[in-house]
Amino acid sequence: MRIGLDMMGGDFAPLEAVKGVKLYLDTVATDAHLVLIGDEAALKPLLSDAQLDQSKYSVVHSSQVIGMNEHPTKALKEKPQSSIGIGFHLLQNGKIDAFISAGNTGAMMVGTFYSIKAIDGIQRPTISTPVPREDGSFGLLLDVGINADCKPENLLQFAILGSLYSQHILKVNNPKVGLLNIGEEEGKGNLLAQATYPLLKDNPLLNFIGNVEGRDVLTDKADVIVCEGFTGNIVLKMAESIHEIAVRRKINDDYMNKFDFESYGGTPVLGVSQPVIIGHGISKGLAFKNMIALAQQMIESKLLDKVRESFVK
Amino acid sequence: MRIGLDMMGGDFAPLEAVKGVKLYLDTVATDAHLVLIGDEAALKPLLSDAQLDQSKYSVVHSSQVIGMNEHPTKALKEKPQSSIGIGFHLLQNGKIDAFISAGNTGAMMVGTFYSIKAIDGIQRPTISTPVPREDGSFGLLLDVGINADCKPENLLQFAILGSLYSQHILKVNNPKVGLLNIGEEEGKGNLLAQATYPLLKDNPLLNFIGNVEGRDVLTDKADVIVCEGFTGNIVLKMAESIHEIAVRRKINDDYMNKFDFESYGGTPVLGVSQPVIIGHGISKGLAFKNMIALAQQMIESKLLDKVRESFVK
Repeated sequence: MRIGLDMMGGDFAPLEAVKGVKLYLDTVATDAHLVLIGDEAALKPLLSDAQLDQSKYSVVHSSQVIGMNEHPTKALKEKPQSSIGIGFHLLQNGKIDAFISAGNTGAMMVGTFYSIKAIDGIQRPTISTPVPREDGSFGLLLDVGINADCKPENLLQFAILGSLYSQHILKVNNPKVGLLNIGEEEGKGNLLAQATYPLLKDNPLLNFIGNVEGRDVLTDKADVIVCEGFTGNIVLKMAESIHEIAVRRKINDDYMNKFDFESYGGTPVLGVSQPVIIGHGISKGLAFKNMIALAQQMIESKLLDKVRESFVK
Repeated sequence: MRIGLDMMGGDFAPLEAVKGVKLYLDTVATDAHLVLIGDEAALKPLLSDAQLDQSKYSVVHSSQVIGMNEHPTKALKEKPQSSIGIGFHLLQNGKIDAFISAGNTGAMMVGTFYSIKAIDGIQRPTISTPVPREDGSFGLLLDVGINADCKPENLLQFAILGSLYSQHILKVNNPKVGLLNIGEEEGKGNLLAQATYPLLKDNPLLNFIGNVEGRDVLTDKADVIVCEGFTGNIVLKMAESIHEIAVRRKINDDYMNKFDFESYGGTPVLGVSQPVIIGHGISKGLAFKNMIALAQQMIESKLLDKVRESFVK
């Protein structure tokens, strides 16, 4: 298993990326080999300081960097020797089995869609967020921003992808799937929700429990909550802001502290043929470590094979 | 000024409604006369116990009650002698200048749309919620649930209505209007948000500051935040759930305590020709008092005249 990591992506790269690598190698049982993509001159002293087991990683030099605010398509085209450009090249050619970056999100999305394909039958890949719950478990909310306008069939596919992810990665048995809506009964909501409800209800792959409302997002009423990316993104960013408020007001409550979504790591792009994980720009060591561990878990659990099986016609 | 109040609406009526009347008369400077609509036999002992100034109110007897879970249209048709039915009758005939109820929300909406008209030029009346902010001030979010699917023109009208409400009721000078969206720049978002942005930008009645994101909802970046009722309702209910969590976890933070939206009172239906205020079913004395005070403020500030002026062709 070879996991590729963009060492130049994110506001605190490459130092925090190196810290994440060390944390991962020190704490996670793994036979993964890490492929660290970045500027050799910058990485060498940091890796040397970190005193890592040299058999566990190799460095692939990249001579260019895509900045956080560069235009995604343009940057990827003009900077093939960037860490993101090289990462997708390695992924496309089977040299790595997963690719992780906390760099330019747009470039990661464009790279994902152009370099590797959606799994057959999937119309729209999606991104999700784990949702912390008071009992310590995690729900899943998707889409959280890359599909602002959706059709009912898209939401059905998100539900299936989320359900598989909940089951195989979050280890929830027979995950309960809910449709985010503004009312409990079937027939409530906007046109999209009204049209999506019967699709979810009738699908044999899903344990559909009906509509869930805004007040249910942070509860365990559903393990997987499905919505279009507009609402999902606003819910996610509002939840993130609750954490900022809690920190500013020194609330220091165990549960409120879990709203620090950035520490979780990144979000996998679900529905594409290989694991791609996109991190927050402000990722620190713990987030990098979590992203590497997630890539390992996605490979070990054969999540993408299960997705393929579910979307076979 | 005559303000009509449904004394039978809400889970804790009529006792909490009477408490609200007393609180209002005891604490608010007013020359309003309250028209209390309800079952005389139930009200009489409670009003007597409350020792109110009898010149300040009169009772209009209602012999029927619409239950919280009755079908709105059916209930209104079959129960003309209900407190809600009588309230709208009085409002329609100029016997009261505003009508308030914490009863069946659907019946209140149906009553509003059938008994009194939308103001000329307004396509869709709307409901809003005040949004507490850390500095003690209040923002306004609308629509929060009655318009699940919207056109750009609807959102423009919500922006104008919200802006007038912010200015004349929340006393915000030149309120900043933001469009709830998933990105800061013009051109971001779903199709609705993309099409709405230029309408808000070009309207001379608005102090439009651009897009606001989920993380900005609880800040003072905008004083009025506009969205369709699907997203708005989910944002509101999620914020309400934060309060429940804070109570359950004994967080007891001054700001988090302000997420107790039910205590604020009700929401006015904006865009209709007379003040109608709909309360939460669980309204208690303070909420009833706040609703009566809001009705008074809406009448005194001549808010609806200002709305009419803004929508003159």
